[in-house]
Amino acid sequence: MKIAQVAPLYESVPPKLYGGTERVVSYLTEELIRQGHQVTLFASGDSVTQARLVQACAHSLRLDQKCGDQLAHHIVLLEQVFRQASAFDLIHFHIDYLHFPLSVRQHIPTVTTLHGRLDLPDLVPLYQMFPSIPVVSISDAQRAPLPWVNWLGTVYHGLPEDLYTFRETPGSYLAFLGRISSEKGVEQAIAIAQHVGMPLKIAAKVDRADREYFQEVVQPLLKNSLIEYVGEVGGDNKDAFLGQAYALLFPIDWPEPFGLVMIEAMACGTPVIAYPRGSVPEVLEHGVTGWLGEGIEEAVQAVERVPALSRARCRQVFEERFSASRMAHDYLRLYKKLLGGRSGRAAA
Amino acid sequence: MKIAQVAPLYESVPPKLYGGTERVVSYLTEELIRQGHQVTLFASGDSVTQARLVQACAHSLRLDQKCGDQLAHHIVLLEQVFRQASAFDLIHFHIDYLHFPLSVRQHIPTVTTLHGRLDLPDLVPLYQMFPSIPVVSISDAQRAPLPWVNWLGTVYHGLPEDLYTFRETPGSYLAFLGRISSEKGVEQAIAIAQHVGMPLKIAAKVDRADREYFQEVVQPLLKNSLIEYVGEVGGDNKDAFLGQAYALLFPIDWPEPFGLVMIEAMACGTPVIAYPRGSVPEVLEHGVTGWLGEGIEEAVQAVERVPALSRARCRQVFEERFSASRMAHDYLRLYKKLLGGRSGRAAA
Repeated sequence: MKIAQVAPLYESVPPKLYGGTERVVSYLTEELIRQGHQVTLFASGDSVTQARLVQACAHSLRLDQKCGDQLAHHIVLLEQVFRQASAFDLIHFHIDYLHFPLSVRQHIPTVTTLHGRLDLPDLVPLYQMFPSIPVVSISDAQRAPLPWVNWLGTVYHGLPEDLYTFRETPGSYLAFLGRISSEKGVEQAIAIAQHVGMPLKIAAKVDRADREYFQEVVQPLLKNSLIEYVGEVGGDNKDAFLGQAYALLFPIDWPEPFGLVMIEAMACGTPVIAYPRGSVPEVLEHGVTGWLGEGIEEAVQAVERVPALSRARCRQVFEERFSASRMAHDYLRLYKKLLGGRSGRAAA
Repeated sequence: MKIAQVAPLYESVPPKLYGGTERVVSYLTEELIRQGHQVTLFASGDSVTQARLVQACAHSLRLDQKCGDQLAHHIVLLEQVFRQASAFDLIHFHIDYLHFPLSVRQHIPTVTTLHGRLDLPDLVPLYQMFPSIPVVSISDAQRAPLPWVNWLGTVYHGLPEDLYTFRETPGSYLAFLGRISSEKGVEQAIAIAQHVGMPLKIAAKVDRADREYFQEVVQPLLKNSLIEYVGEVGGDNKDAFLGQAYALLFPIDWPEPFGLVMIEAMACGTPVIAYPRGSVPEVLEHGVTGWLGEGIEEAVQAVERVPALSRARCRQVFEERFSASRMAHDYLRLYKKLLGGRSGRAAA
């Protein structure tokens, strides 16, 4: 199948450090190539892929100090995609809704994975304009604010099986990995670690919008000798960071659409202690790959019950439910549904 | 002629307070209606117009606390415009470049007035993708960073002749009107007023991005009893604020694409003292409607030379060069050029 994958330009594909969407686009792209498909990847020029790469900009935008207008580059991206559209059987977008008015005015089938939260009121009139655009959710929970759009299916994210190292022996610290923000729960994680009396390592990026929060709220909490901020981690460092942890803390306070770090931890064999918001009850199995609990008290109890979980079983569930090959298989099924439905209509 | 005017959604058309682009779209729209054209205005629902109004959102976005994603509403706007495109002879966009990939894929002639600064490096690859899209500059100086795009013409902004009241007698204070930011020169204005020893009234909005600058840099300067901050002004208050001033200070430190407040002052008969950046030397006539000078010392001398200027002559130049009817006439000439060229090609 000739497939276009269209990634956002904020991070390279895959990202060097933080960045969920571009990471998933990378895993999907490389797995589709491995399965013999012809894939063209539209992404920033510092991306690394086996696919044919069409670069909309030389460097990914988030860390590019010279970039003052991210939208301009995404308009270039759109133009590149639609100039080449007829070369593809299908175009798979990962850039939210920016392409919708173009998609509905051309004939190549498109599918859009929605990677973000959908509970902003601004999105309601937007999706009301495009009720028939086929979209894919990354958890069933993500759909809640917009149940009436044209959901083609839910496809959970997946990772290459050899990306993370399974480690049988638990480490001695709790891990937090994500973005420094109130909704990702870094303060909750610190409070949990302090109650348990176990070291917490925080690997996280600080967005410009969150700098004030980091300086005023988080930095004072780092004075506690149990708490260590290690900055952003990627690649091998991330493997060691997650794999050598006793457990991952995921005490979120927002409707997480998926939560990639949960399956990254599982791939290492590391159990996850999480608040049951958004996708969490779909991704984690309570008592198998982690413990779900609400609030600091339950999370503290959960940390104490980590030895009851099997790290080998965490890894096994990862392989069964969250591999990149399973993800690619799911997407191919949706692609075929879309193309089949289309030929059917054309023949009618 | 059946004309669509497409405004940004940040402010209503016209804006209640600050907001240059939406203000100009309003003046142009109402003048085209007055001249007998059929105009459809795509804008926020709180706009007020004699045209047929198509609202992309109920309320303008800048002051809407509930709005968390301004782009979503602009995508709705685009979809509305292109669903109705065939009803128009011509579509006139005022939303930068967001519509470019759609414009090039349909057959109704479009023209785009570029209202912003064009010296961002991000814009170069964007305009390279769309070298033939017809665009209009609001000053010749604005074109400098992108001389090779398809400039159809320069059309200076214009105001309804009865909007501002001519006042023959000069007032006793200096006026600053705009946005609180370093590039708009509010610090320079304060320094000039202090050197001259004349009161300065500052009417300005403070964007979220500029709040820190306002609190840390500007607020301490307001302690001087000569300096008064009066907040945002609009409507009748603006007429009195500008008309009762001795002179308007416009000591900018950026390539101003037009500078609407200069012609608003001229309409009141109030001379302008300005630094000669961007459009300023095209809009102001040195020694007639104001004085151009670089730096605080020259600006101070200029304030002292204000009595040498005729307020009646300022008003006269405004009527000759910067009325809304002149602006509409200029745009109609460009519309016809575009439609003529098009019919010519179709016939060839």
